[in-house]
Parts: sequence; C-alpha cells; structure tokens
Amino acid sequence: MTKERIYLYDTTLRDGQQTPGIDFSVEDKIAISAMLDAFGLDYVEGGYPGANPTDTAFFTEKRTARARFTAFGMTKRAGVSASNDPGLTALLQAKSDTICFVAKSWDYHVRVALGCTNEENLASISASVDAARAAGREAMVDCEHFFDGFKANADYALACARTALEAGARWVVLCDTNGGTQPVEVREIVGKVIAAGIPGANLGIHAHDDTGQAVANSLAAVDAGVRQIQGTLNGIGERCGNANLVTLIPTLVLKPAFAERFETGISAEALEGISRLSRNFDELLNRAPDAQAPYVGASAFATKAGIHASALIKEPQTYEHVPPETVGNRRKVMVSDQGGKANFIAELKRRGIDVPKDDNRLDALIAVVKEREAEGYAYEGADASFELLARRFLHTVPEFFRVNSFRCMVERRYDANGALKTVSEAIVKVSVDGEEKMSVAEGHGPVNALDIALRKDLGKFQNEIADLELADYKVRILNGGTEAITRVLIESLDATGARWSTVGVSDNIIDASFQALMDSIIYKLMKNREMAGLVAAE
Amino acid sequence: MTKERIYLYDTTLRDGQQTPGIDFSVEDKIAISAMLDAFGLDYVEGGYPGANPTDTAFFTEKRTARARFTAFGMTKRAGVSASNDPGLTALLQAKSDTICFVAKSWDYHVRVALGCTNEENLASISASVDAARAAGREAMVDCEHFFDGFKANADYALACARTALEAGARWVVLCDTNGGTQPVEVREIVGKVIAAGIPGANLGIHAHDDTGQAVANSLAAVDAGVRQIQGTLNGIGERCGNANLVTLIPTLVLKPAFAERFETGISAEALEGISRLSRNFDELLNRAPDAQAPYVGASAFATKAGIHASALIKEPQTYEHVPPETVGNRRKVMVSDQGGKANFIAELKRRGIDVPKDDNRLDALIAVVKEREAEGYAYEGADASFELLARRFLHTVPEFFRVNSFRCMVERRYDANGALKTVSEAIVKVSVDGEEKMSVAEGHGPVNALDIALRKDLGKFQNEIADLELADYKVRILNGGTEAITRVLIESLDATGARWSTVGVSDNIIDASFQALMDSIIYKLMKNREMAGLVAAE
Repeated sequence: MTKERIYLYDTTLRDGQQTPGIDFSVEDKIAISAMLDAFGLDYVEGGYPGANPTDTAFFTEKRTARARFTAFGMTKRAGVSASNDPGLTALLQAKSDTICFVAKSWDYHVRVALGCTNEENLASISASVDAARAAGREAMVDCEHFFDGFKANADYALACARTALEAGARWVVLCDTNGGTQPVEVREIVGKVIAAGIPGANLGIHAHDDTGQAVANSLAAVDAGVRQIQGTLNGIGERCGNANLVTLIPTLVLKPAFAERFETGISAEALEGISRLSRNFDELLNRAPDAQAPYVGASAFATKAGIHASALIKEPQTYEHVPPETVGNRRKVMVSDQGGKANFIAELKRRGIDVPKDDNRLDALIAVVKEREAEGYAYEGADASFELLARRFLHTVPEFFRVNSFRCMVERRYDANGALKTVSEAIVKVSVDGEEKMSVAEGHGPVNALDIALRKDLGKFQNEIADLELADYKVRILNGGTEAITRVLIESLDATGARWSTVGVSDNIIDASFQALMDSIIYKLMKNREMAGLVAAE
Repeated sequence: MTKERIYLYDTTLRDGQQTPGIDFSVEDKIAISAMLDAFGLDYVEGGYPGANPTDTAFFTEKRTARARFTAFGMTKRAGVSASNDPGLTALLQAKSDTICFVAKSWDYHVRVALGCTNEENLASISASVDAARAAGREAMVDCEHFFDGFKANADYALACARTALEAGARWVVLCDTNGGTQPVEVREIVGKVIAAGIPGANLGIHAHDDTGQAVANSLAAVDAGVRQIQGTLNGIGERCGNANLVTLIPTLVLKPAFAERFETGISAEALEGISRLSRNFDELLNRAPDAQAPYVGASAFATKAGIHASALIKEPQTYEHVPPETVGNRRKVMVSDQGGKANFIAELKRRGIDVPKDDNRLDALIAVVKEREAEGYAYEGADASFELLARRFLHTVPEFFRVNSFRCMVERRYDANGALKTVSEAIVKVSVDGEEKMSVAEGHGPVNALDIALRKDLGKFQNEIADLELADYKVRILNGGTEAITRVLIESLDATGARWSTVGVSDNIIDASFQALMDSIIYKLMKNREMAGLVAAE
C-alpha cells in the first residue's frame, strides 16, 4: 500500500513569536529557520513582513534551502483593491516561496472585527490569493476560527474555504484559533468539510493547546482526512501554545496507527536528531528544557527506583513505548549506574580517549561528574569542560599558567557634570613559567572586564590565544531567591572555525564566569598541542 | 436528561511520587491530601503503605474528610495465601477507605515479571479483592498494561478485568502504563471491553503522557464509556507524567461536549479555585508554575497580538474559549511592542490608572515603552516596573530616596593556607531627607551584596521594607558575545503575600540588577502609601 504524504508546517517564528516572554531578533530567526530547514520540515513560516521591522528585515532574503519559506499576512482589506493595500504590497515584496493569508471564516468575526459584509470578505480572500499567484507564489489560506465558525454558520465557513481553493490556493488550513475545540468535534467537522466536497489533500489543521489537546486535535484531523499539520517547536505559541511538532513528529513516524498509513518528510535517521533539535531550541531561548516532554525530555525514558527498574534493565520493551534511540534520547534508570558506565566509555571514546572498563579512575570520574551535575554543572552542554575534566582524571592536562588572584570592581556614581556613570574594571595576577604578570582592563561589565584582563598577557601563550573569541555567553539561575546558584555557559571559537563550550557554577556569577573562561583558554591551549602532536612531549 | 457521574481519582501522592526529582515527606502528603480533599476529588490515593516508611507513616491515620482515602499495593504473590503475604498484610493494616490493587493483565508480563502462570495471576486478583472486602474496604483493581495486553491477548486481559469484578471490586481501571496508546485505540478497546460485558459504570482510565495525549486518552475513554479518571495535579508522574486533572476537570465541567452528558463532584464554584490549587501545588514543590498550562497558566488568557487585543477588549468571547473567571484565572492583555493603544489603556485601568484615549502623555508613554522594549526591557514580565514607569509619566512617584553611588567588588585569591577564597562586597551611599547614609555588606555574589547593602539603611523607610524578600532572580543575555546586553528580572514578595516583578537592562549585569532592585523597593513604598490612602497627600 502506498502511503499518503503528511506535510509539516512550522509556525515557530510567527505564532511562536506570540508566546508571552518570547521575542526573536533577526539573528534568532536566521538561526531557527536554519535548524528547521536542516531537520526536514516542509514549510517554515518566518513571520509577518510589513507588521514590524524585524519581520520585514528577515524577509529581505529567502532563508531556507529545502523548506518552502512562507510569509504570513492578512487578506486585503475590504474596500481597497489588492494593489492599493499596503499590507498586501509588503507581503508580495517579501522574498518567500509561499504566502499564507489569514482569513476570517466565522461570520460573527467578519461583522465584529472586520466590519464588512460576508460577501466582501469572500472577495478579499479571492483577490488576495489571486495576487499571490500572479506574483508567482504558492498561496494558502488559514481560516481563522474555522471550527467555532462552522458551528455557528457552516455554510459560510465552507464558502470561505471553497473560495480560497477556487482562487487557486494550494492549502486551506482549518484553525482552532481559540483552542477550545475537542477532538471529537474536530473529527466530526473535518469529516463534514470533506463530505461537502473540499478534498482532504488540500486541508491543513492549526490547533492550540487551551484544553491540553493540540496534539490530539491535530492527529484526529489527520485521521479524518487533512494532510497538513501546523505547529511549533516545543509547542510555544500564543496563550497555551500551538500543537507541538516535537511531540507530533515521532508519533507520526513511529506509531503504527499513523506510520502504517502516512509518511512525512522526516526520515527515521533525521528523527534521531529531534531530541537535539528540541534542546538546542530551548538553549537558544535560554530556558530550561521540560524534563517531562514526550519523547525528548530528560525524564521521558527515566525510571525511578522501584518495581519497574529491574524489569526495564532485563527487557526494555516491557516498560518503553518506543526505543529511546529512535528519537535521539536515552534510557535513564535511576537505581543503577550500569547504563551510566557504558555511556561514559562511549562519550570518552567519541573524544579519542580510550579507557578500559575496569580502570578504577573511571569510577572516580563518574562519581565526580555525578556530584558536579548535582551541584548544577551541565556537561551535556559543555563538551570542552567535560573533556578537560576527563583528561585531568585520566591523563594529565599541563598547568599552562596559574591565576594567583583577580579583583573585579563595578562603580556607579554621578560624574562632575551630574551624569550617571558606571565603570567596570578587573585586575588579574597570573604566573607563567614562574613569572608573575599583572593586567588590568575596563569592560562593559565585570565579566567582560575580567575576560579582557585575563587574556591580556599570558606570556608565551599570548600568540596562541590571539584568535580566541567569545561567541556566546549564557547565564542561568538554577534556583531562585537569595541563595541562587548561577550556571554560566560560554561558547568560544577560533580562527579555524572550531567552537567549544565550557561551564562554570557558583553562588557568585563572577566566579562561575571565571571558571568557564579559564576552561575555554586551557582547552584551546590543549587542542593546539594535540594538533601539533605535542601532547606526549609536554 | 439526568447526567451520568464521572468519578475523579487523584494519584498525585503515588504515581506523582514517581516523578524524577519529586519526593514527598509525610508533612507534604498531609498538606496535599488536605488540598485535594477540600477541592472535591472523589478519591485520594495516598501511596503504597508497606513499601517505604513515609507511606507507612502516612497511612497510620485516615487523612481525608470527604474523599475516599485510598491505599495502593500489589495483588498477593502467587504461591502464598492472602494471610501469609506481608505486602497484602501491610495494605490491610493501613487506615484507608479503599484499596487499589495493581494487577498484571498482559500475559507477557505475567510470565516475564511475575514468573507465574496466567491462572495463578487470576487467582491472586480474586484472593486479594476478597481479602480487602473481608476487611471492610472498597476494592479496586488497576489493570497494568491493559491496552498493550489487550492487543497481545484480548481474552486474557478481559479475564483479569472480569475476575476482579466477579470478586467484588467496585472499579476495574484500564491502565496505559507505558503511555504509548493513541486515542483512537483507547476508544476502540474500551468499546470492545464494554461489548464483552464489562459495564462502563465499573471502568476507569489511567493514562500517561508519553505521546502528549494523556488528557485526550482519558476523555476518549469517557466518551467510550468509562466512568472514572485517574490523574495527578499539574500532570506530574513517572516519565512524561500522568493525565493532568487540572486540565481535565475544567474541560469536563465547562465544555458542552462533556458537560451536557456528565457531572463530577466539582461544582462551578469549586472550579474557580482550580488556578489557586495548581499554583499552591507548584509552590509546595518549589517550582515555577508553567505559564502556558491550559486554563490555569499565567499566559492561558494572555494576548500579545495587537490585532487580537482590540477585539478582545471589545468582546472577550471573540478570542476566549471559556471565561477566565470560571477557572479563577484572569485576562491579560500584554504590554509589548506588538500591542496597540487599546492594550495600554486596558492594562493601566487594571492598575487603577485612568487615562483618556486622547491624553497625549499616553502617546509619549507608548513611545517610551516601545523604545525601551527595543533596548531589551520586557514589561510583559515586569508588571511593577511597567506600573512605575506609567505612574512616573502620568502622575508622579515621589523620590523617596536617592542612591548617590555604589561600588561592588569581587576578589578571588588564595588565602594564607593556600585555599581559594572569593569575597563579594558592596558599598552604597544613599540620601534620605537630605542626609547621606553609607552602608556596606558582603554577599554570595556582587548582586547579593548590593541588594543587602541597598536595603540595610533607608532611614525612615527601613521599617516599611523589612518584610520585602527576593523570591526569584533571572538573568538573560539578550545577544551573545562580548557586546552582550543583560536583562535582569526580579520577583519580590512581602508579608502580605503580594508578589511583583521588576526589570533592569544594561550591558553591565550589576547595573541591570540595580535597576530592578531599585524598582522593587520603590514599588513597595508606593504600594504601602496607596494602601494607606496617602498617595494624594504626598
């Protein structure tokens, strides 16, 4: 049996941008669209060009290679021609493959929000789709409030969908804008829409999570015949969020109820990247990943000490609904470190460090890593710090230099002219080959001043770190309140294009930053030696 | 038409206890069972007496007044009589109204995990239910892996259910233990179970969220005929969690698809307490509530988009699937650069600030908010800073005190014994009523030291801020690299239980923290005056 294709449409950069607390810069949007494109989604909706300067700037170029790059906007206003509507003009000027128009399909909203007649709204839909097609774009129409509209006036909701298709739209997307529709209702209404002559092959679903059923509503719609799903990474979105693509995709690919009938653009191999995709996205948002997230959460395959654990070790399929590797996640049995040791050996091997299973330095290293992770270190996101720690245990890392002391000072006062002024300064004392060097620097803040002072004079190593750059600096407070523990993650890069991440943890943000800065410099010096084949000679 | 009763069964204290990172003390369990009982749940499962000292201690008394207090445990082992099974004995000694036995119903698990015959397992179910009934308890049986078991061997899964009922169990609960079953499958299998002669009135559903559909699976089961739902507060539970009762209950009570057919023990009035219940539970777990949680999250009725906001203010039902008051939540029109003038007026009104639409200070305020948000301020997460900014524009905020200067210092060095030591110190100079005061403090880091020094001596205001506490401190780096801009969000609370959030932005983390700390103190002083009716007198 040939499988039917389900198209995946990502709206992280548009509906996701409506999440309270989330605001993407152009750089964020570029990074996220690249992640989505590489993962294999069919459509990447980038935003609403013309509505704000960020989105307009983002659409000055096409940002995807494989995925259809999509611009979102409203249908033209009633009473003006398509060519005289400034919103539509901005949309047509945006560099996109596809234009997704949002159109009212609930007559009540046509009256209250648009203040035009039902017929004028249909004419707007038709003229907007025409204009997009004339400009060489694929057109689609998001029917806002479709389900509520259908309950109130089915004929009019259907007329909106039909008008869009007749004008040449590739897709008509049924939106549960307020998010209150139940799966049984979605299934029933989609069935009626298809029975009314609108082909499922042209239908999409856009669900919100206001009753915790955005995923179920999307799947119910697919089961009832729609062939496109709109959703977001990690389910961000207005109010309670949109349908979570990170949850939906593994279900579509792995669960027989769907996998036997449908295929998506995501291969089994690509699916193994979904845990990483989800975590990288949270990292970019600088928020803690949800440990209980389906498929990709740190706890999704975790079993706590108890009746399940021993059975799980003997026969994983007894307590796992899918194998964790299929989604790039891993089993976590919290009662025993047996799985842990094998993981460690594999992680070390990946870095060129071979350790026999019975080497007892390995047990000591595992114990230290567990202890430090309990304190807040996150080695999963700090490869270079993990490698340094391991090499310190298993081989030796040379003490290239030693920081004898540092001092950071931030002073804020009114200057002679009565203007507020804040000055940050750092002083560092370093020993290199027995010689003490003292450096001082000003910076934008205490960490920046410390970083500059630390890298100002490392004697014979100075040339080697000249190309070291801080690419990113992230701070997370691990527990709130006054006893807060701070975790700092630093990403560094050099002229070869290499990137590495280091971590520091302390109740003092300066201390945590210092640890991560030090690890970064030492890692760079170590790598230089390794590349030059000098490690043995040290 | 008389409505059918749905029974709500809470397993927060048992399956919820399996959540990685969550461990309840006896005191926690007492507090939580009181919350659940007061809210109106039908069953409160308290734990597994005999399995660990906490649960055994918790079951030395009956802990609920209205709800049926339920003890969980395994059916008796094969090969011993009920009276010789120590696990069963502990269960019968526990002070409970109901005993919930977990029984294997997948023949594969009977073989692999129990190592007994199918018939011996049925005999254990029967004997265990008998023993509970003989001890005067209501009995119920959780059929573990029921759906996977039914797919593998429907006859045996049904035999387990039937055996439990024939022995006199009030309920047989169909458990999706591994959490991978899809709603379509739940619906189909429940239908077959009822068709096989097991009455829906005796059936319950126990769903896990491994595909993000625990709520949908529970509702599909109800629709197909079961009359009891097991779940937890805020969806905690093993791996991805259990069905979230906080999401399920409003849907059952408010959504016509269910409310027209069913009733629960939760009245419309009690339902208004559900947001508080959810937040109090997170408070007890000491974790930040999920802002996007359906019905009860801080963002569940929040609107950021300008186009939605004006319609929302005119006619809330246009963009709300249920009225927020019905679940004790509230509408939130976000102040953000996406929102329009209507947002602003509504937000100001909510804070008791009335501004006419044509007041041109309003336009100036909107311009300043937009400019500051472009710099990185996030007023939607910092209510108190927004209110202060607005009041400064529209009325006046007294200058209670003035910070003339501050200095923070962090020093790290080796002490006389060669141990590393980091010291953080801050000095603050403040003018109150023309008198300069100088305070110095040490802290865990520079921000902590600054906070302590700042609040050490504010002269006549000192008593007023004695109960001010930092509840949370968050840092976000808005753009990576060395030119990073830092945003600090601070949540404060006082003895009245009031909480407020303030924001600071700067390229210097100390400066950003200082702004947020200052806003917090000034907001508190302003609120004190407002409550005392003194604003006019200032």
